[in-house]
Amino acid sequence: MAKKKTMLLFYRPINDRLSTRGTHEINENIAPQYESLDYDICENTLMRREEDSKGDKFVFRKRIARWFVFLLIGVVTALIACCIDIAIEELSSIKFRFLKYYVDLCMNDRCMYIPHLYWVATNIVPVLIGTILVTYVEPVAAGSGIPQVKCYLNGVKVPRIVRIKTLLVKSIGVTCSVLGGLAVGKEGPMIHSGAVVAAGISQGKTTSLSKDFHFFNYFREDHEKRDFVSGGAAAGVAAAFGAPMGGVLFSLEEGSSFWNQSLTWRIFFASMISTFTLNVILSAYHGFPGQLTYSGLLNFGAFPNISYEFFEIPLFVLMGVLGGVLGALFNYVNLKLTLFRMKYITKKWLKVVEVLVVSSVSATVAFAMIMMIDDCRPLGQDPTKFPVQLYCGDGEYSAVASIWFQNPEASVRSLFHDPPGSHNPCTVGVFFAIYFALSCWTYGLSVSSGLFIPSLLTGAAWGRLAGMFLEYLFPNAAWTNPGKYALIGAASQLGGNVRMTISLTVILIEATANITFGLPLMITLITAKWIGDLFNEGIYDLHIHLSGVPILGWEPPQLSHNIFASQFMSYPVVKFNCIESVARIVDTLRDTIHSGFPVVTSVHDPRNQQTEAGTKLCGLILRSQLIVILQNKIFVENKEEWMGKSITLKLFRDAYPRYPKIEQIYVSELERSYTVDLRNFMNPTPYTVPLAASLPRVFKLFRGLGLRHLPVLDNRFELVGIVTRKDLAKYGTNH
Amino acid sequence: MAKKKTMLLFYRPINDRLSTRGTHEINENIAPQYESLDYDICENTLMRREEDSKGDKFVFRKRIARWFVFLLIGVVTALIACCIDIAIEELSSIKFRFLKYYVDLCMNDRCMYIPHLYWVATNIVPVLIGTILVTYVEPVAAGSGIPQVKCYLNGVKVPRIVRIKTLLVKSIGVTCSVLGGLAVGKEGPMIHSGAVVAAGISQGKTTSLSKDFHFFNYFREDHEKRDFVSGGAAAGVAAAFGAPMGGVLFSLEEGSSFWNQSLTWRIFFASMISTFTLNVILSAYHGFPGQLTYSGLLNFGAFPNISYEFFEIPLFVLMGVLGGVLGALFNYVNLKLTLFRMKYITKKWLKVVEVLVVSSVSATVAFAMIMMIDDCRPLGQDPTKFPVQLYCGDGEYSAVASIWFQNPEASVRSLFHDPPGSHNPCTVGVFFAIYFALSCWTYGLSVSSGLFIPSLLTGAAWGRLAGMFLEYLFPNAAWTNPGKYALIGAASQLGGNVRMTISLTVILIEATANITFGLPLMITLITAKWIGDLFNEGIYDLHIHLSGVPILGWEPPQLSHNIFASQFMSYPVVKFNCIESVARIVDTLRDTIHSGFPVVTSVHDPRNQQTEAGTKLCGLILRSQLIVILQNKIFVENKEEWMGKSITLKLFRDAYPRYPKIEQIYVSELERSYTVDLRNFMNPTPYTVPLAASLPRVFKLFRGLGLRHLPVLDNRFELVGIVTRKDLAKYGTNH
Repeated sequence: MAKKKTMLLFYRPINDRLSTRGTHEINENIAPQYESLDYDICENTLMRREEDSKGDKFVFRKRIARWFVFLLIGVVTALIACCIDIAIEELSSIKFRFLKYYVDLCMNDRCMYIPHLYWVATNIVPVLIGTILVTYVEPVAAGSGIPQVKCYLNGVKVPRIVRIKTLLVKSIGVTCSVLGGLAVGKEGPMIHSGAVVAAGISQGKTTSLSKDFHFFNYFREDHEKRDFVSGGAAAGVAAAFGAPMGGVLFSLEEGSSFWNQSLTWRIFFASMISTFTLNVILSAYHGFPGQLTYSGLLNFGAFPNISYEFFEIPLFVLMGVLGGVLGALFNYVNLKLTLFRMKYITKKWLKVVEVLVVSSVSATVAFAMIMMIDDCRPLGQDPTKFPVQLYCGDGEYSAVASIWFQNPEASVRSLFHDPPGSHNPCTVGVFFAIYFALSCWTYGLSVSSGLFIPSLLTGAAWGRLAGMFLEYLFPNAAWTNPGKYALIGAASQLGGNVRMTISLTVILIEATANITFGLPLMITLITAKWIGDLFNEGIYDLHIHLSGVPILGWEPPQLSHNIFASQFMSYPVVKFNCIESVARIVDTLRDTIHSGFPVVTSVHDPRNQQTEAGTKLCGLILRSQLIVILQNKIFVENKEEWMGKSITLKLFRDAYPRYPKIEQIYVSELERSYTVDLRNFMNPTPYTVPLAASLPRVFKLFRGLGLRHLPVLDNRFELVGIVTRKDLAKYGTNH
Repeated sequence: MAKKKTMLLFYRPINDRLSTRGTHEINENIAPQYESLDYDICENTLMRREEDSKGDKFVFRKRIARWFVFLLIGVVTALIACCIDIAIEELSSIKFRFLKYYVDLCMNDRCMYIPHLYWVATNIVPVLIGTILVTYVEPVAAGSGIPQVKCYLNGVKVPRIVRIKTLLVKSIGVTCSVLGGLAVGKEGPMIHSGAVVAAGISQGKTTSLSKDFHFFNYFREDHEKRDFVSGGAAAGVAAAFGAPMGGVLFSLEEGSSFWNQSLTWRIFFASMISTFTLNVILSAYHGFPGQLTYSGLLNFGAFPNISYEFFEIPLFVLMGVLGGVLGALFNYVNLKLTLFRMKYITKKWLKVVEVLVVSSVSATVAFAMIMMIDDCRPLGQDPTKFPVQLYCGDGEYSAVASIWFQNPEASVRSLFHDPPGSHNPCTVGVFFAIYFALSCWTYGLSVSSGLFIPSLLTGAAWGRLAGMFLEYLFPNAAWTNPGKYALIGAASQLGGNVRMTISLTVILIEATANITFGLPLMITLITAKWIGDLFNEGIYDLHIHLSGVPILGWEPPQLSHNIFASQFMSYPVVKFNCIESVARIVDTLRDTIHSGFPVVTSVHDPRNQQTEAGTKLCGLILRSQLIVILQNKIFVENKEEWMGKSITLKLFRDAYPRYPKIEQIYVSELERSYTVDLRNFMNPTPYTVPLAASLPRVFKLFRGLGLRHLPVLDNRFELVGIVTRKDLAKYGTNH
């Protein structure tokens, strides 16, 4: 028994033998509960038999079905985006009209506490609904969802991330958050929604509603599902920003390891369809059917005539530095706050209370700012939907109130496009400080919330300030344009916070519809990333690492060719024989948490009868496969029973993706004495590496092919260890 | 001796054991002379020792150097593009002014044969220069260069493709071809130029001019060089079309197998820099410094207000079908023509003569068309640079002449943007027929020539015709716009010819600066590709396959999981022992053409003394490494000599990339009795596959990691075969 126990202490990292050079830090904060997705195809007998029975016709049908699914993904994602957008638009119109009415009313009656209370109330009510949904119904819907989608695309199963329930909570939740005046955006959640839509449609069944439509069951593999989810995420980006190419690049940047030409093409198609559908619907909604001018939820407004001079490039670099520093500060404060929350705000009701506090403070601070800063502008120059007069003279409106009396997207647009002189530096400065603090406090609350808009808005505020300062220094220069600097500031702050690079550049280029301005954006973003990376990671990565997800970066750590598989593999390995007893399988599945097991045959070395038998690897079997085998009782001793029926991949597909737990499977005492022939089910030719393979070599194989288990063989080609994602993730990533 | 000979019949494909299902055709037309690039890093002792001696500082310096090289690539590529563009612009101005003068003069004097002869002469002279350069100086500079760049990025060494001499010939050649009035464009050659620039700069030496600057010698590996070449090709696309994102996607589509985040980012940077530099220079040249409106060589002119209705989508599909059919026809005719040329036009002088014939015919046909078609328009409506009056009345000009009296780029622009009614359907129809035939005849001549412009122009012609027809059918509809249909036609024809997908869509979107119109372009392009693929391959792929380059597609063939490594590997394998005699190495290198050799140790099976010794794989060594070892006489018996000096990777880098041939290395009789210890030089942990690995599994490993040799092991883990690129390429590709 003791021996068995030791043997089951499997996958144990061998830290004492790790690199003695000290340059490679080991990250011990890898949570054990996360499993990987299977990207490698299990080419077992069943699969080959199925392929043999199918012809080119099937290939063609599958191809058509795939395109059709991507079309649906694009359309449905766009529809959801439209619903959220229209709901927010309509409801917030009502809210602001209501508030404006009371503000206008109370200006004369000196009862300003009434609109303040109403404001707090109209914030608290939707936020309460949102937070209760998120906290009690589906906690995984909290936040923007981008970190989770990132993990999923990276190949890590995040539980419940692509369920319909999550989608519902997320959609209603984000509508409530935005409506409740929190410093949040609706763009991040759109990306998550797209991912859920893709996973749902492609599987032709929903386990949440336990309904199986029996469509597309040949897509029921991790491998296929992940492809569709990439498309969904891209469609989400496309819908959110009107940026189909940005969507494709987002998916590639976060998800793809092996560049797959036809997949990329389909992702692009889904993005295009999504942009198109959204455009058609929103243009019609806004009363311009057929004009197709609303290409994304977030409309920056085009910058067709923006231009720049050579000597501005150092200014852009400087703003990139500032964005990097501010972004790092944001991330640092948010990290501390998150740690605090993880320690103290653990009860659900506490989370709800915190949300309500933030919501009330948001309203109060905004109200105080409106009351205290005196910034009147003539009506007509900046026509917000609900200009309030407040203490201003007749024919004037309060510029401060106008920033707050609209959704954050509209505020970003104002800062980008309002003509020079529309804003008072003091207003913008105070607004920046408040919004920076609020958005930092808000991110990580138990609500659905995106970070893009708050970052852009914060950045646009200080960028516009910088632009105004330049205008003041060079009053007659043609190149000073506060809107342009607001855009650079927005890019810089966003880059400093999230540190995404290629996709962000493309998203901003597409959103501003100006390719010429791509170079400044790129320079700013890359500077912000480099500077920010000196201090800490991007906000998404911080949150991913806090939760201990074993995410793999793009490249192995630098200078790691001297770390060998023998140093980072896990051993000893729990393995099965080709023909294994049911008892041992059941016990092993119960006593370990491993998701894959090498299958071996014993080879006795005739020279030395004393040594233990050597074990030659002959395949790899997954826990999920074993579960299905046990569940269906496909035992050697049951052969007669099974001879009639055919054992096909269908059995495995029907159980996908929520396999029962081993505890849920009943195996009788008699059956425990039976055996299973694993050779028909295992993957007969897993990739392997020798003991002397270096970390970069193993990393490339693992990452490039999307592996989950990689057996390690010694000089005599005997199985001595296994490498899993967690073993590699320990070494950290290299950006 | 006989036995040895048999053993050297290595890499022999085992056709008789191939799939009996008959679904997988074997392509036997794989030329043996093409070698692969090494993308896998050889982690030998020297490399590990070098890494040990380097610190993070070196990593940082290398990273900075890499960015700097990409910056240079962008700038230099753009400069070359500008030179070519300005040269063509200036010289063709002179040419057309000269011709216009004589046309105007001879209208009255009835001496039209004079301008005709002058036209033929002004065509023949530059074309003669161009073809002599290409034919006699550097034949690899013929054509657009895109097929060759594709092969290089795919991992095949095409001899002399990235040399400075090739760049010079290509640049001058394409200037001459365009100037000579051939139906060619200058965009394809720009992509090739970018690739050469990248290879040149990154290596810090030119073997053509035998000058070594000793810069960047850590980039002297196939692996690094290929990365830079990707950037160069992207910069070329960016310069040619003002499409930085299109450039990135072109490189990814053609070149990348493993998605490399930081590489993509650098490629994007090079593309941006290239677009920017070109824009600055060309804007200044055209007299609008600082306006940055010339973002590419090919300026389609923006289509900011183009829009479309739902019901037009079937029309776009229909045009896609037409483009696919026309493209397939073009490719078919060109293929037959190429086969004819390969058979009959083999002598160099014949090639030159053919070029001169085509050039004269081009001028003559154009002249005939100008003379015969009577299409007069009032001056001012379509102000070409050189309007000629010809037989038209005063204040009018000949619309036919205006199409021919300008470069093809300008003609494309005319067809896209001329207001409705500018063209006569008859003119456009005849022009289409002539240009289709001319461009089909021209592609494949011994001149530098791009295919993009002729395809776009042909397509724009029939597209405009279709638009005019729709206008005639629906005279008052707002959506009929011949320019829009010219654009769709151009995309469709180009898609039908080249079958590129993602990058082409993005290039066209960027060139037209209209994201909304992306969906129609995408639909058209994909239809054209699908329809065209029913008939034959894209023109580039046709030419690649004609030359027998073992190019690998994106995915393994469908339904090929039942083809095993045992069926497609080459065997028996020529192998070396860990300590091998110099004599055997020299003889083997001389008697075989293999570029890599497994290194094995013999293991005797104690159970059976009769059988041959089993061989355990312990590494892989390349021909180039052996050559350097022999050249430097790093023999075991010379140990004392070598003890003092250090054997480092520098020895190998200095010889890169043009290693001497084995015949050029002198080995004395005494030295032949010496031995080499291969263990310090070989790659000790090559990836391997078992005999039972399926074709898709081997393909993915090979393609995903960019391998060159993949040893195959049997059940006892003994080396039994090797898979190379040619073995896989035989099975064809799957798009």
